[in-house]
Amino acid sequence: MATGSGDIGVLSVVDGVRLASVAAGVRYQNRRDVVVIEIAEGSTVAGTYTLNAFCAAPVKIARQHLSDGHGKCRYWLINTGNANAGTGKQGKIDALACCQALADLSGCQLSEVLPFSTGVIGERLPAERIAAALPAALEQLQADNWLAAAKGILTTDTRPKGVTRILTLGGKTVTITGISKGAGMIKPNMATMLSYVATDLQVDYETLQRLLNAAVTRSFNRITVDGDTSTNDCCMLAATGRSGLAFAELNAEEQAEFSSALNEVLQSLAIQIIEDAEGASKFVTIDVTGGGSEKECLQVAYAVAESPLVKTALTASDPNWGRILAAVGRAGINDLDVDKVSVSLDDVPLVEKGQLSADYSEEKGQAVMDQEAITITIDLGRGDVNERVWTSDLSEEYVRINASYRS
Amino acid sequence: MATGSGDIGVLSVVDGVRLASVAAGVRYQNRRDVVVIEIAEGSTVAGTYTLNAFCAAPVKIARQHLSDGHGKCRYWLINTGNANAGTGKQGKIDALACCQALADLSGCQLSEVLPFSTGVIGERLPAERIAAALPAALEQLQADNWLAAAKGILTTDTRPKGVTRILTLGGKTVTITGISKGAGMIKPNMATMLSYVATDLQVDYETLQRLLNAAVTRSFNRITVDGDTSTNDCCMLAATGRSGLAFAELNAEEQAEFSSALNEVLQSLAIQIIEDAEGASKFVTIDVTGGGSEKECLQVAYAVAESPLVKTALTASDPNWGRILAAVGRAGINDLDVDKVSVSLDDVPLVEKGQLSADYSEEKGQAVMDQEAITITIDLGRGDVNERVWTSDLSEEYVRINASYRS
Repeated sequence: MATGSGDIGVLSVVDGVRLASVAAGVRYQNRRDVVVIEIAEGSTVAGTYTLNAFCAAPVKIARQHLSDGHGKCRYWLINTGNANAGTGKQGKIDALACCQALADLSGCQLSEVLPFSTGVIGERLPAERIAAALPAALEQLQADNWLAAAKGILTTDTRPKGVTRILTLGGKTVTITGISKGAGMIKPNMATMLSYVATDLQVDYETLQRLLNAAVTRSFNRITVDGDTSTNDCCMLAATGRSGLAFAELNAEEQAEFSSALNEVLQSLAIQIIEDAEGASKFVTIDVTGGGSEKECLQVAYAVAESPLVKTALTASDPNWGRILAAVGRAGINDLDVDKVSVSLDDVPLVEKGQLSADYSEEKGQAVMDQEAITITIDLGRGDVNERVWTSDLSEEYVRINASYRS
Repeated sequence: MATGSGDIGVLSVVDGVRLASVAAGVRYQNRRDVVVIEIAEGSTVAGTYTLNAFCAAPVKIARQHLSDGHGKCRYWLINTGNANAGTGKQGKIDALACCQALADLSGCQLSEVLPFSTGVIGERLPAERIAAALPAALEQLQADNWLAAAKGILTTDTRPKGVTRILTLGGKTVTITGISKGAGMIKPNMATMLSYVATDLQVDYETLQRLLNAAVTRSFNRITVDGDTSTNDCCMLAATGRSGLAFAELNAEEQAEFSSALNEVLQSLAIQIIEDAEGASKFVTIDVTGGGSEKECLQVAYAVAESPLVKTALTASDPNWGRILAAVGRAGINDLDVDKVSVSLDDVPLVEKGQLSADYSEEKGQAVMDQEAITITIDLGRGDVNERVWTSDLSEEYVRINASYRS
């Protein structure tokens, strides 16, 4: 199951980036499970990473390599089928062996290869099988392989996720293209699931990292499927500079335009993850308004977004607003005055200042809940801070997928 | 689905307490949906209540009445089918109307009646139908009706919950009998679902409240099904004094013995709720040891207990220990040193100081996971504080129940 159209349009090439996906037999046979993304010499790369304390070996290495190289990077090496997490020292050895194999084949430095893994936790990475697939991957590198790469990084996802934005800045064309994978174990924390984004703008390392952090905050850090944070979340952004334009030479308005387009790309990738969440039949936007702080808005938004009772009511298209109130009420907001709280489903007021709205009828609520895309707005009546979070419902299909995965 | 035997044994009478359950047609016809529990004059009563900000009208009234009367109370009036929550001012009027009807019929004060409701949120309580059923309820009051009352307070529960402990203190017999209801929306917070406990010991109000708080902390406040906290949770404890013994006159050892028996009664009732959790096929004990504080132990315990990925692995009997590590890793413990964390399933070591145990095999893990009752022990290696939490798995049946409830 999934929501939305799944139509991602054309993924444009980004000059300076080539991609390939090959079948290495990491976990299954005949499945393209290794993706190599080559980034032209002279590019800069920024990244954000999971905050899970049990972060996987490849995450530690990617972060270290990028930090050592101060944004200098030539390859992203991604495998599915095995997360190389919970694998201790052996996990690092195996991830480094894959990086070294790619460095040897391509003639770059070890630290210019960043490894990423996704899949089952706690099993040893078959580094030899991955290394054996690399020569074919290097041969197949192509600039117009974004869609193939988007397919190659999927696990329990039902469809590829990607987006392109093309801007004209200072008379020149700038392209941003990104891909992502998600589905389950989704509550990124200052990072994301796997996402790879590139632009042909030239951007220095510090600026690129700042732009990425800002975009991640309002995109991947505002989605949740099940409240679980992966050990392997990463979001990487490359700037090749091949457009001939540099961010530093743009005027303030153009810089804002680029930054805004980058935010749109990441937001689109994040929303595509929620649309394709495991077992999803609803796409739910939760707007918390009138909060006293970002923190309390997010507390309420996530309490509602992650409530199994709200999520099962959504899957049943049941306008069971009492469960929304119950989730708001347990969100842990100090001195919440329930007589100031209002809740609506799309534009149908449910609760106005703590009381069931006089205009509300079960029919009106049902009409909204029957839709695939639903916005729940919760006004706390305490301030002027707003936050938005996206989530999905909790279906029997979600349980089936997660009870059978690995079996 | 449910776990455990469901055998609650005989529920002994508590001298000074009589109970009745009748069918009032609150939501369904021909279902015993109103329970009246009469407490003899001269008894004391203590209570704990939900901390949900949207707590229901009856909870507010019960708390107020008991506080006004300083523990003086003659009746607990409980209905199922309707939670009288999210009902605003009308909700209070309706709950008070039910209390007044019982006070009029029995000749007690309004404040001596405590109302409790459980069921659907946000619909108006049919106070007239409840009041109309009260004369029959008063006629049917009997001391040996504990089991009938235990059945009468159920909603989505599949079986009644109750327990009796009989002690001999100072040569006399003291009885404690309690009943509870649970099933879903279970993460009590300084309170519980509905639970009613009585003893024939004489205990003053302040002491009774203190004993209740201590017992609730280690029982109802240590269980979770779905992380959702009800708007209607309450745990009430009555002390009738009819045994002829007073707590204040017991020696320290006898007081400890009574307190320990009371803790056992509440813990048994809490565990019975988890055994009968919605869709439950596993009974899971989570022991967090070696923590630096109670708070961090509980953070880890609840992160694991409420992780949909851990819970779906449990439902599949899949020893997917990586999901346990991932949940521990995202629990938000500052500076968690993963190289000091150890995890075991029953007595099978999984992870020792951050590394997969050399002795671990999938077969050993599978043997534990195939059991109905499983203990997950997580040692944080940071201190000497331990905490224990009980939970259930997340099954397709849970989703079916909660997607269809109310429909």
